[in-house]
Amino acid sequence: MLIRPKEGILDPQGKAVERALPALGFEGIEHVHVGRMVELEAESPEQLGELCEKLLANTLIEDYEIQTL
Amino acid sequence: MLIRPKEGILDPQGKAVERALPALGFEGIEHVHVGRMVELEAESPEQLGELCEKLLANTLIEDYEIQTL
Repeated sequence: MLIRPKEGILDPQGKAVERALPALGFEGIEHVHVGRMVELEAESPEQLGELCEKLLANTLIEDYEIQTL
Repeated sequence: MLIRPKEGILDPQGKAVERALPALGFEGIEHVHVGRMVELEAESPEQLGELCEKLLANTLIEDYEIQTL
């Protein structure tokens, strides 16, 4: 599952990375967003949406995306 | 970029999620690993490996993977 800050919500980690880039010699990098990735093995993938809602994501400020392999 | 704990390195966030699952009624979920996801727009994607090494990942304990859209 990928969990990212909602559009329009402040992303302080992304901003911190953006600010650090010039001092390290990186240029031309924009729109940095930092989120979380949770990987797991589930017998019943249909419960993963509820898992994100209840435990993994703060749905007030974060969106989640479920990818199945 | 996806940044995850290296194989064999303790993943306390993943363990914390695993331990919380039964109390929330989730069963059949195993091997939980929590990592980070960094999304950005770069003019020169070839510098992203160096960016991961220098700033985003702790390569002693984390692996990174670069995906280009």
